[in-house]
Formats: sequence, C-alpha cells, structure tokens
Amino acid sequence: MVIVMKQDQGEKTEALKNRAEKIGLQVIVTYGAGQNILALVGDTRKVELSYFEGEPGVEKVYRIQEPYKLASRYANRVDTIIEIEGRKIGGHNFTIIAGPCSVETEAQIIETAIKVKAYGADFLRGGAFKPRTSPYSFQGLGLEGLKFLRKAKEETGLPIVTELMDPHDIDDVYKYADIIQIGARNMQNFSLLREVGRCDRPILLKRGMSSTIQEFLMSAEYIMSEGNERVILCERGIRTFETHMRNTLDLNVVTAIREMSHLPILIDPSHATGKVAMVDPASRAAAAIGAHGLIIEVHNNPKEALCDGPQSLYPEEFKQLNNTVRKIHSLVQKEAAC
Amino acid sequence: MVIVMKQDQGEKTEALKNRAEKIGLQVIVTYGAGQNILALVGDTRKVELSYFEGEPGVEKVYRIQEPYKLASRYANRVDTIIEIEGRKIGGHNFTIIAGPCSVETEAQIIETAIKVKAYGADFLRGGAFKPRTSPYSFQGLGLEGLKFLRKAKEETGLPIVTELMDPHDIDDVYKYADIIQIGARNMQNFSLLREVGRCDRPILLKRGMSSTIQEFLMSAEYIMSEGNERVILCERGIRTFETHMRNTLDLNVVTAIREMSHLPILIDPSHATGKVAMVDPASRAAAAIGAHGLIIEVHNNPKEALCDGPQSLYPEEFKQLNNTVRKIHSLVQKEAAC
Amino acid sequence: MVIVMKQDQGEKTEALKNRAEKIGLQVIVTYGAGQNILALVGDTRKVELSYFEGEPGVEKVYRIQEPYKLASRYANRVDTIIEIEGRKIGGHNFTIIAGPCSVETEAQIIETAIKVKAYGADFLRGGAFKPRTSPYSFQGLGLEGLKFLRKAKEETGLPIVTELMDPHDIDDVYKYADIIQIGARNMQNFSLLREVGRCDRPILLKRGMSSTIQEFLMSAEYIMSEGNERVILCERGIRTFETHMRNTLDLNVVTAIREMSHLPILIDPSHATGKVAMVDPASRAAAAIGAHGLIIEVHNNPKEALCDGPQSLYPEEFKQLNNTVRKIHSLVQKEAAC
Amino acid sequence: MVIVMKQDQGEKTEALKNRAEKIGLQVIVTYGAGQNILALVGDTRKVELSYFEGEPGVEKVYRIQEPYKLASRYANRVDTIIEIEGRKIGGHNFTIIAGPCSVETEAQIIETAIKVKAYGADFLRGGAFKPRTSPYSFQGLGLEGLKFLRKAKEETGLPIVTELMDPHDIDDVYKYADIIQIGARNMQNFSLLREVGRCDRPILLKRGMSSTIQEFLMSAEYIMSEGNERVILCERGIRTFETHMRNTLDLNVVTAIREMSHLPILIDPSHATGKVAMVDPASRAAAAIGAHGLIIEVHNNPKEALCDGPQSLYPEEFKQLNNTVRKIHSLVQKEAAC
Repeated sequence: MVIVMKQDQGEKTEALKNRAEKIGLQVIVTYGAGQNILALVGDTRKVELSYFEGEPGVEKVYRIQEPYKLASRYANRVDTIIEIEGRKIGGHNFTIIAGPCSVETEAQIIETAIKVKAYGADFLRGGAFKPRTSPYSFQGLGLEGLKFLRKAKEETGLPIVTELMDPHDIDDVYKYADIIQIGARNMQNFSLLREVGRCDRPILLKRGMSSTIQEFLMSAEYIMSEGNERVILCERGIRTFETHMRNTLDLNVVTAIREMSHLPILIDPSHATGKVAMVDPASRAAAAIGAHGLIIEVHNNPKEALCDGPQSLYPEEFKQLNNTVRKIHSLVQKEAAC
Repeated sequence: MVIVMKQDQGEKTEALKNRAEKIGLQVIVTYGAGQNILALVGDTRKVELSYFEGEPGVEKVYRIQEPYKLASRYANRVDTIIEIEGRKIGGHNFTIIAGPCSVETEAQIIETAIKVKAYGADFLRGGAFKPRTSPYSFQGLGLEGLKFLRKAKEETGLPIVTELMDPHDIDDVYKYADIIQIGARNMQNFSLLREVGRCDRPILLKRGMSSTIQEFLMSAEYIMSEGNERVILCERGIRTFETHMRNTLDLNVVTAIREMSHLPILIDPSHATGKVAMVDPASRAAAAIGAHGLIIEVHNNPKEALCDGPQSLYPEEFKQLNNTVRKIHSLVQKEAAC
Repeated sequence: MVIVMKQDQGEKTEALKNRAEKIGLQVIVTYGAGQNILALVGDTRKVELSYFEGEPGVEKVYRIQEPYKLASRYANRVDTIIEIEGRKIGGHNFTIIAGPCSVETEAQIIETAIKVKAYGADFLRGGAFKPRTSPYSFQGLGLEGLKFLRKAKEETGLPIVTELMDPHDIDDVYKYADIIQIGARNMQNFSLLREVGRCDRPILLKRGMSSTIQEFLMSAEYIMSEGNERVILCERGIRTFETHMRNTLDLNVVTAIREMSHLPILIDPSHATGKVAMVDPASRAAAAIGAHGLIIEVHNNPKEALCDGPQSLYPEEFKQLNNTVRKIHSLVQKEAAC
Repeated sequence: MVIVMKQDQGEKTEALKNRAEKIGLQVIVTYGAGQNILALVGDTRKVELSYFEGEPGVEKVYRIQEPYKLASRYANRVDTIIEIEGRKIGGHNFTIIAGPCSVETEAQIIETAIKVKAYGADFLRGGAFKPRTSPYSFQGLGLEGLKFLRKAKEETGLPIVTELMDPHDIDDVYKYADIIQIGARNMQNFSLLREVGRCDRPILLKRGMSSTIQEFLMSAEYIMSEGNERVILCERGIRTFETHMRNTLDLNVVTAIREMSHLPILIDPSHATGKVAMVDPASRAAAAIGAHGLIIEVHNNPKEALCDGPQSLYPEEFKQLNNTVRKIHSLVQKEAAC
C-alpha cells in the first residue's frame, strides 16, 4: 500500500506511520519535495483502503499488493482446468454453453438441448430461478424447471448450468446443476458467495455490471476462501453511458484476467449486447481475443420465448456461430504456438 | 410501450402487432415516412423491454408506463410519512441518522450514541453485519453487535438502523432493529427484498451504485409488493469515471424521486464521498435540494475506527453539521411556503 | 510519481530507475515483499504517465505531484477574485449569470436582460455561436447576435458572457464579450485554450462531460500558462449511465476545486439537468455546497425559444430562485464564520 | 420523434401538438390509458430533442428518425470504399495503419516506416501536432514533423495519416497528409469539422471518449454536409468506471456502425488499452468482429519514445500481429461467404 501525503504534512506523516505500524505493517517514508510518500510493506490484504483514505493530510492511497490470493496468477502459474463429466473448461479448451434464457416447458428445453448438442454445444444452460427487475415479471418455473433440465440432460448427456439466487434453494440447485451460476446482480451478495463456496460444484461467476476487474476477482476469492476453488469467470458487459447496446462488452477483460488470474474466463455476448445481430460477431471476437469459451442464448423458437427472445439465436444460427468460432479458436491457438 | 421500427419494415410491423395483441395489449400503429411506430396500450408492467427489443426490424423500444405501481406518485399523491417511536420520516420532516460504520465495542457504540443524541440525531446507525469486498476484512460483530446496539438504545432512546445482508439473519436483525437497512450491493438481491417485504419493519433501501432511478424504484416495489409499504430510499453515490471521490453523489435524484414517488428519500454523504471534508458541504446541499434527511457516519474516535474512519465525523463536527443543515432545511421550507 | 512494479521484477526495476534518472528525476526504490516501488522525485509535471505506464514489468503508475501549477491552491493560498466592471467573482461573492441559451432577436435579448437585471442577475449570458450536435440545427446569429448583446448591455449595464467556438471569431467575441465562455465540448480543444490564454478577457471554462477534475484544472492551466490567469471554472454535469437527467451534476466538485485550486467555481444547473423543474432545487444545493455562483438559462418566453426552451426559466421563476439562493448563500457564510 | 406525456396532461398534449405543427411537422396522437403519446412525422432532423424535452407535462422525448442523413446506411446501401494511392479502405478490405505516436526525428520515422512497410502496413501514421493534457508536455515537432513524414513516404511509398488540431495549420497538414486525422478530443470541435469538410482529403474521425454512436455519426455528418464524403470512422475506447485499462474498447460499435452507416470503421487498440500486452489480442478481436482495419502504434525503439512508448509495439511484434489478424480477416470473410 502506498500513501501519498498532501504538501507540507510532516506531522501527519508521522501520525500515519505510527498508525500503520500499530497494525503490524512496516513503513518506509520517502520525503519528497514538500510531499511525502509512505510505502507500507507486509500483509495489507486485510486492510481496507478506506482505513487511510480520506484522512486529513492524505492525498491518495494506492493498493499495491493484490487483495486476493487464491484467485491470483501468483498462486497458480498454471491455468486452472475444471473438468466436468469429461468436459474441460480452461487452458487451451474452448467451451460453449448454450440454451434458453428460461426453462419454459419440458418440450422446449429438450428440443433446444437436442439441437444445441447436435450443433456443437458442450453444456446446456437454462434458468429455473430468474432475477427480474420487476416483481410482476415471470420469475421462472423453480424446482419444476430444474426437473425439466434434468430430463434434457438425460436425453442429451449435456451437463447443466443454471442460476442460484436464493440461499434457500441451494439444495435443489445443487442436486440438479453441474455448474451453479451466480448472476451479475449477485456478484457482491457475499452471503451467497460464501454459501456456494462451501459446496463442491463448480461455480460460474458473472461480473457485476459496474464491478471493476479487481472486485470481480475478490468475489471469486470469497468463494475460493471457503474451499471451493473451481470458479469460472464470465464477462457479460458493463454499464456505461452508451445505450445503443444493452451493455458495453469489455473484451479486454479477457487479456487482463489471463494475466492476473489462473481461472478460466468466458464471454456472454447475448446479455452483453441484447441484440441477436451482435451475438455472432461478438462471439468471434471473444474467441479471437483468447476467451476460454462462450455462454450463448439459443431457443428452439425465439419468437415465442417468454424472456430475452430477441437476443436468442435460432438453433441454425448457433450452428453457424459454433463452426466459425471454433475455427477462429484453432487459428489463434496455432498462431500462438508459432 | 412504444416500438419504433427500422425503415421499410411493413411486414415485420404486422408481425409485432400480432405478437403484442396476443399478450393482451391494444396496438396503435403510426405509419411514418418509411418508418413505423407502434404504441402499445394496456398493462405493460409485466412485459420486459427485451420481449421486443433486439428483434430484427425493431429500432428501439421505449417503456411509457412506469413499471412500478405501489411506489409511484400516482398511487399516492400525498407524501408517505413513516413514524417510528414518535419520530417521523418523510413529508416536511428532516431526519438525521448518525453513528459509526461498524459496531466495535459496547463502549464505542454507547459513547457515540450519547453524543449524537446530544447533538441532534434522530436515529442511531451502526453495522453488525458488514458487506466487505474482501473475505479477509473484518466482517462485523454479528449478533453481539446487535446486542450492543440495543444497549445504546436503552441508554439514549435512539431507535436503531442496521443492515441485513443474509436472509438467515433476519430474525435477529428484526428483533434488534427499528429500521432494517438493505445495502447498495443488495439492491437487486431480489430474494432478500422479498424477505424483508414480508416483515413489518420499515426498510431503508440504498441505491445500487450503478442502478438507474427506475431500477431503484422497482426494488422498492419488490418490497412493497410483498406487503411492506414502509420503504425509505437512500442515495449514496453512483459509480462514474471520476475517481477523486469514492462515488459521484447524484443529488438531483432527490428532485426526481419527489416527483416520481411518494416515498421519502435520504442522502448518505459519507459513503458517497468517502472524504470527511466533503461530508459537511454535501449535507448542506442535501438539505437545500429537498432531501428528507441524512445518514451520517460519526465515530467517537475516528482515528481508531476499524472501518471507514477517515470518512467519519467527530461528534463535535456532527454537532456543527446538524445545526447548519437544520437551518437550511427550515429556510427552504419557509421559502417554499411563500 | 510512484511506479509500482509487478512481482519479481528486479531487473526491470533497475532499468526503469535508469530511465527515470536519465530524464533528470531522483529515484528512491522500496524493495517490498517481492514487489518493488519506485518513488520519483523532481519536476514530474512534464512527464506523462504513459511514459512508464504499460511498460512490461510495471503494475501501475501514480502521479503524486499535481501536473498543474498556476491553477493549484499551492500557487495561491488566497482565493482568486475576478473583478469585471465592479462585479466580483470568487471568494465570498455569489455571482449569478442569467439569460437565454441563444440570442434570437434584439427584442428577446433586451427584454430578457431587463428582467433578469431587475430580478437580481449580475451578468447577462446569451449564445451567438452555438455548438450543435447536428449541422442542420440553428447555429446562432453570429456577429449579429453579438451586436444584440451589446445593445442589451447598453440598456441594462449587465456585462456580457458569451461563447467562443472558433478561433476565427476571437476578435469579434473579444470586442463584445466581458467574459468569454469555452464550452464543455471544447474543454480539451487545446488550440482554442491557448488562443484565449493570450487575450485579456476573463474566461469561463466549462468542464467537459467526461473530464476528470484533474483534466479540468489542466485545461485551466493551458489558459493560464499563456498569461491569462483570470479563469472561472464551471461544472455543468458529467455523462454517466443515468438517463433520467440530461447529465449528472457532480456538486462535490465544488468542494474538491475549493481545496485544489484558488479559482472560482460556478454551477450550471440548466444544462446539467435539462429539466426546468430541477433548476431551482439544484441551484439551492449549489449555493449550500459553497459554489461561487450560478449560470442559469432564463428566457422572456421559454415556449417560443429556439433552443433549450424547456430548461429555461420564466423571468418570474428566476426571481424566486435568485431570492432563495442568495439567502442560502448568506446563511452558509454566516455559519462558516461561527 | 415521439413525445410521451405524463399522466392526465390532456391540455398540454394539445399545446404541444400545436407547437409541433407550427414548425411544420405532422402530429398523430395516441390517447392511452391516461397517458398520451405524440408521434411527429416529417423532417425532424433539424429539431433538437431539447425543443420539447423538459417541458412541463412531457415525460420523455425520443428521436425516431436518425438525425444524420449522408452518413446513414439508408443513404448508401453499398459500403463506401475510399481509395488512396491504390490502397482501398472499406468493404472487404482490411487496412492497417502503423507508426509512432509522435514524429521525433527524421531517422526515427524513416526507420519505423521502412519496418512497418516490410511487415505489412498499408499506411504510415505519426503525430506532428500532439494534443496533450498538459501545456508543459512535448507538443510535437509541427511543420518539421510533417516534412519528416514526407521523407518517410518518399522512402517507402506509404501514404501518410496525421492529425490536425488547429484550423490555422490546415494548409500545412493538407499539403503533407494523405489522410487527415481528427482526434477524439476534437470530435465535437464543430468548427474544425466544418473546416476539414471543405477540403478534399479523406478524414479519419476518432470517436470522442464519451460520445454515443449517434453523436459519432453526427460528427461525420458535419464533415460530409460540407461536401467531403470520404470519412473513415475510428473507435479508440470510451471512458468508463474501469481503470485497469486506459479506456474501455467498445468493439460492438463495429457491428452497430456497419448496420447504421456505409462508412468504414477502424479500431485503435493502442490508445484504447494503453498496454502493449493488450494490443495484439484486441487487434485479433477487431479483425474477427468485422472492423475494416486497425491503427497501431509501432516505434522503432519504444523504450526511447517521447510519448506512449509503453503502448508501442516493436516492429517485430507488429509483424506477428499483422500476420495473425490478416489470417483472421480472411477466415471471417470466407465464413461469411458460406
């Protein structure tokens, strides 16, 4: 941690030095031209920036040491690869998760599953519990939806990815899901993170729509610190001033995460853009930039979808997408090997 | 709801018209110069924008009818006033909630409570369960903290405001809190909103750091739709590109909320700015713009605070703040009456 | 300047140390637990962050010394007060600039000027050259508009504030304006800043809609470094994800600027909100938080205004606003003196 | 244009209808459940949203018709292809512009030009006039820099791309540049846009860091409306809350622009990320998503660069990048043709 003092704050520099030493940190002071800098060495992970920030005399506080440990690239130089029923996520693998926004009927989810399996998907997604901005919107089929997902798995062999919103539902979701998804709105629902950190299912953690990359990794750390190290990260767009797309897809996060962490990072172009015409190009870009995979909304009949229909692909569109992105992934792998 | 079509989309206009009619809406089409507009009349509250948005042929979808009902100004032309042990929040009242970020010790919370009471506070705040970005930070005293708050109340008579993060703790928090706070990071934790919507304590709902005003009111609606209509809104800064302050305090939200809703709206200048020197000026501005009150961090000894020390006021600073903002509130009330 | 190295970058630390010394800086290295920190002492104002940032081995570069000098509070502990025809801007004064968005006709500007003068304005504003997003919109009356402003000044004695967009127009604007305004979109039009830096008129510099406070002060520095030290800053809202208001008014910038600089800072609530109903409350907040004044759109007949009609006040609304904000300003001055 | 009224605003609906008809628009009113909607048909391009927005009684105003005309896809169903000395930009072509941030010495620019030519670049970039946040930073070599660029062109045959900041320099820049660049900070410097709109050089227009896609196209329209229709768009990152990268690269803008306009759209990954390690992955993504090309910072000796060194590639890194992105572009073209 580095504390930069305002000008001519000799006395306050000493006071802060004492304060930092009291909590066990070593302090090295650089006396600059009127402006002092304190470098705090030791385990600063437990210290919040706000412990020093805003203090009179302090200009700015910077965190040097990453506040996360288990999620850090330094903890694990080798990419984490998560294996689920023979399918691998991370490393050189490119994983495609596909399926509808919501599970609506048994027929819908089975038909969609059969198609996305045939066209190249590795996992089936589908929401049984849906986070909705409005209390009056369709909230998902709940347990019944989970059971339909199970049938789709029995039919196709595709492992299931589905979202958990409420700690009360964890036993049900645990029973039916192969990967438990934590949605963007719950990325800092710390109770829920701890809860899934105590189970042994891989977790797909979506980035909150205004969370920094560091906060994103801190939320992964919450899960990992409870014992569950199988975390898959997923970028799904951040909120900016631009309203043409639903969100602004921050693809460079892939390069950042690959450097900062050993965890796999997927891209969700469907929620990021909210527009069917943008899903295919954004998926190509995700493969090209080095993402470990995609999560794509596909519906057997988007026109009748109860939610997110217009951002859902037809199965045939997914087929084309799947083919192209896998070719791009291979090309990029080959080029990197040169 | 208004759907604007792209140019020359005659056929798709008809298809969408049918789709909207199928879900029970009346549709009026304006055939413009090559570009058609569909106005959807009826109860569109249950319809998500994404049901039409992103569809090929659609340029943009706008929601006309507010998606909230109980929280709306149209539901209640008269300001909601919430009464708690003789103290009123809303309407012409100006309510000040003060206290430390975290409950740390019995002595700390009682000493702080006595001082803020003496200097003008109406309620005591203090966190027993703390949402922390890092799993390694101090997470609050939990139940013990709640008990210390109770003692501080017994000592001073100040009703208690404290945060609930985890549905598992609702019984404890319900028992010790007079107002239950939902933090910014949980503003769209819909399970938690429903949970507190089923209890009979007033709820202090903080705006999420990237939530729109409409999403903010929708989260209030979640609580109200379960039966608990005593919701107090609180703006605490939004996340923008500016990093000089911790967040950007969006004070105009007060004027917006007063027009759109009947619920009271408070300002939290401590979290919004993260800087002790900004708390007093921002509080004056909050009173001047028409907020119904403030929630302020005050600590009996900010230098030793376990969290947010540098944004906490000394009790004597709070005294001065309290005096000035109440004068501004009176002046503004008087001027409005002219 | 502080450079934080990534872990285990001993060699690169030395290389960067040499690089910094080569450009005349003194370098102090703190060897932390695997991670080194370089403190660069000397005149780092000319060094761009990007000179070190992004270099392999570098984690982050922080600027310690403010990159501005003349605009800095350290350059001038006493508030700058700018006097124009007997009117003072800055310090304890509260200055109100009022008038229409555009000069439309001689009658319109004179009538508006007479009214705002009568109701308390100190200066008259009005645009002769208008920055418009669309090339097809009304672009202002140009030189003719400047002449109408002159007549309004002759009629009322109110000094004139008007915008300069194009360096080709500087002679005309110089001749007719008492304060030259640089609009938000030109805040980083460095050629224009240099140009007005070489003239002897006070400059009203508006903050760009996505500029940081530091960039804002750097643009003031551009003007001052050419010799014109009479710069008046003006916050007019920043661009964020919130679309309810035209922009998000960042009122805490007043407190920040008062600490970082000696220059006066005004608030423009009309452009910040874009809504007539928000202008009065936001003006009250501006006075309460400590702004040095306001710039307000007032039109003798808003319904017929060629631009920004709906955010323009009627003269009578301005009268009420003027009275209230001046009372708040007095109250805050009195309280601060306690 | 669509105007949505607040509830129960019958009278004001009529008043607005009259107001719109007075400026020559046809008005169709939909009388909804208490809430009226006005659809305005006719040429609304000249009408600013603010002409109606903010008016009491008005809830929201939406623009339906695009405010741009010449830049619109409807104006030109076929992609614009701009030919410069035999090199084509737009359509199925993939154009790579490479070179240093600033022209520093004759040797530096010639050496860099020779290398980027050899490794696949189509154009040479280099700044002679540099927009700098600080008046104390190196501002470019000016005319001398332009002359060095000319020599580099004579040596290699690469046409030159360089920035114009000040209208006073237009004759010099016109003489030496084959494409004139307008930087992000000047995207809404309307005087400069008009100026370059009157010359016959192609213009490379960079997106402002907080400009919407629509504003971006409106700035292109400014240039085109003066007669110069050879505009090349360039996305270089937008400003968001995320500080890990210099800016957030908004790659989906490529898909949006390709649908909304016929103009070519390039990506600048160097300025967007500010990190050399991100340039190559982001370039691959740009090619995959369908951009018409790239503008890349390459320096013969990044360690000695006077500006932006750490985001500049070594020529050999550029060679690798060039090879990979051209393969991705070919693959995507081939797939699209299937």
